[in-house]
Amino acid sequence: MPGSINPDRLLSDMRRLASFGAYSSGVHRPTFSAPDMAARHWLVEQMREAGLAAEMDGIGNIIARNPRQGRRLLMGSHSDSQNHAGWLDGALGVIYALEIARSHIERGHAGAIDPVVWADEEAHYASFLGSRSAIGALEENEIEAARDATTGLALRQALADAGLAGMPRMHISAGDYVGYIEAHIEQGDHLDSAGLRIGVVTSIVGIYQYRITVSGARNHAGTTSMERRRDASRTLIRLAAQIDARIAELAAERTVWTVGNITVEPGQVSIIPDRSDMLLQVRDADPQVLVRIDAALRELVDRCDGGCPVTLGMTARSEPHRMDEGMREALRTSAEQHVPGDWVDMPSGAGHDAQILAGVMPAAMLFVPSIGGISHHWTENTKDEDIVLGCQVMADAAYRLLAG
Amino acid sequence: MPGSINPDRLLSDMRRLASFGAYSSGVHRPTFSAPDMAARHWLVEQMREAGLAAEMDGIGNIIARNPRQGRRLLMGSHSDSQNHAGWLDGALGVIYALEIARSHIERGHAGAIDPVVWADEEAHYASFLGSRSAIGALEENEIEAARDATTGLALRQALADAGLAGMPRMHISAGDYVGYIEAHIEQGDHLDSAGLRIGVVTSIVGIYQYRITVSGARNHAGTTSMERRRDASRTLIRLAAQIDARIAELAAERTVWTVGNITVEPGQVSIIPDRSDMLLQVRDADPQVLVRIDAALRELVDRCDGGCPVTLGMTARSEPHRMDEGMREALRTSAEQHVPGDWVDMPSGAGHDAQILAGVMPAAMLFVPSIGGISHHWTENTKDEDIVLGCQVMADAAYRLLAG
Repeated sequence: MPGSINPDRLLSDMRRLASFGAYSSGVHRPTFSAPDMAARHWLVEQMREAGLAAEMDGIGNIIARNPRQGRRLLMGSHSDSQNHAGWLDGALGVIYALEIARSHIERGHAGAIDPVVWADEEAHYASFLGSRSAIGALEENEIEAARDATTGLALRQALADAGLAGMPRMHISAGDYVGYIEAHIEQGDHLDSAGLRIGVVTSIVGIYQYRITVSGARNHAGTTSMERRRDASRTLIRLAAQIDARIAELAAERTVWTVGNITVEPGQVSIIPDRSDMLLQVRDADPQVLVRIDAALRELVDRCDGGCPVTLGMTARSEPHRMDEGMREALRTSAEQHVPGDWVDMPSGAGHDAQILAGVMPAAMLFVPSIGGISHHWTENTKDEDIVLGCQVMADAAYRLLAG
Repeated sequence: MPGSINPDRLLSDMRRLASFGAYSSGVHRPTFSAPDMAARHWLVEQMREAGLAAEMDGIGNIIARNPRQGRRLLMGSHSDSQNHAGWLDGALGVIYALEIARSHIERGHAGAIDPVVWADEEAHYASFLGSRSAIGALEENEIEAARDATTGLALRQALADAGLAGMPRMHISAGDYVGYIEAHIEQGDHLDSAGLRIGVVTSIVGIYQYRITVSGARNHAGTTSMERRRDASRTLIRLAAQIDARIAELAAERTVWTVGNITVEPGQVSIIPDRSDMLLQVRDADPQVLVRIDAALRELVDRCDGGCPVTLGMTARSEPHRMDEGMREALRTSAEQHVPGDWVDMPSGAGHDAQILAGVMPAAMLFVPSIGGISHHWTENTKDEDIVLGCQVMADAAYRLLAG
């Protein structure tokens, strides 16, 4: 194979990275925690040993530059983890980039591969903190305000504790690159349940998030007639059921929607609630589907007539990001050579740093199977042979893209 | 009037009782708190000054015995309040009993009126703690286990702090009494909005309470297809809407039902919840209506098929209690004499100690209007003229029942 990687070294580095913050069969490596920083320093060392000019910047990103001139590929993922989560989420794409850049140098192939390790993709402080910083989409005032969602620690303090205070934040020169490739576990069970080995990502879904809030009137649950009460929980229940039914009508084949939380106040069995709210998230790869559902939601909220004012606030909105056709073609060709017929084009239902990079350069993603579709849990896993195969397919695609 | 009361003394005692734990225009007098105990000691004094043999017992009840022989009426309510609540809830019936017993003695009428002041009707520790103790329906092991719902203080400790440790709990000798009468504010707006002055309670509603729990599977909200997910919040939303619609079909004219709380775990926007539950309460004066709704609930839960197991647990159940016809007639006759046509027969949507007493003797209740129907809030109020009228109507009814 032109871009052949070293499978033993790959697996050994994967396991070494998993030793930082090891937790059961997974890892606990929250952004800027001691194990996260130890892992980042270890990654810098590995990249330098491979002959790359690796530096960590003022937001915790590692950008490793191959000193060679020529066509360049950016490649990587994140090394922070969710709390008490799996060993592969982010780590897989990071070690792939290290191994592919390293074997590329060893074999003297044309062009250069620059590995990157993003900080805080898992949003302990803010979504896609590192990749947004690298493309110039992170303001200082956001850094000033951000706090760890679990511990409440200020981001500024975390950066100081990690020895990163006052260091510059590096920006990617997008024009330098043919594009960005990120490998990741699928996190769903589409590949695993179908016996497929590789997913070539077509799009990363857009995510629209809402908070729907109902205002009622607190009153005695026994002495207040149904006609007279303004019941925030009853209004929310009816509206939530209408919303679910309407989204089901408008949904495309892979649309997903989730009510992640509902709260009712004061939450007492004998008191008619004066406030209720729900968090709703809708994901789809097609912007038209998201816009159609958004309009329907607003209409349902406007028409809601339980005697209680209802407000709909959009709390987050990311648009779908299409992956680059030329890069996808390179991945498809490699996959078909290695495992003919056992790969598939598929959207990513989860967000990834690749969607941030897609804003400034061609971007692509490769998925390997998640056993049982398990994700964000320490039992998350992928077969060794799939880990090796994914890296080889990506190395070949990189070779093609740099030679092309 | 035969049983004429002293309006100025009545209003003055009402205001004095409200000074214990005064909070804004209401009171904060949680059971066994310092202001609650001070109020109870003051009540014992007032009853002794009126010539009654008043004692506080080992659960905080005050039972005051008129030393006279003859036909006897038990009369009273509770002096504890909900947190930061109104000045009349409970207090009205307590001071009515004091004033009616006192004026009854002063006028040398036939028979005897024994005032009682129940402890913890508001269930800081347990529902109807005092009245259940008095009829022999409170076990020591319940006292052992009970804790204050707000502070977590053990009931045993609260009793010791109040100086009641080791004191005997008095039991009512039901056979001694013609019956029990309790006056209370309506807590709804039926009387106030119709311009009526007195409500004669027909029944105290039964209350069936449920906890409905859905078990799902926690998973990634982006990568788990709608077909594959087992979504505890989606299942609950659909079921709750079905339950609401079905109860509306089965409800009688005055049935009320309330979802007082909903919880979702883990409650994160991007995580499919693995657990959800809701508290449901249904109230009606007709046991048939409650039984019909109960059966329908169980059927809906059994039929629920969101891929998530659903359990329905009944957390509390009190049956409707009919008030005694003879005592109601005495109240009606008195009301019609004072305010012809401006009184009404009506059920009580709230629970009262009278339902506990109704288990061992004839019981009746009289309601006075709540301005705006406000209850369990410090703005709760009733016009002075309605407070005086209610007491006079009840005094006349007591005179009739004891003379009869």
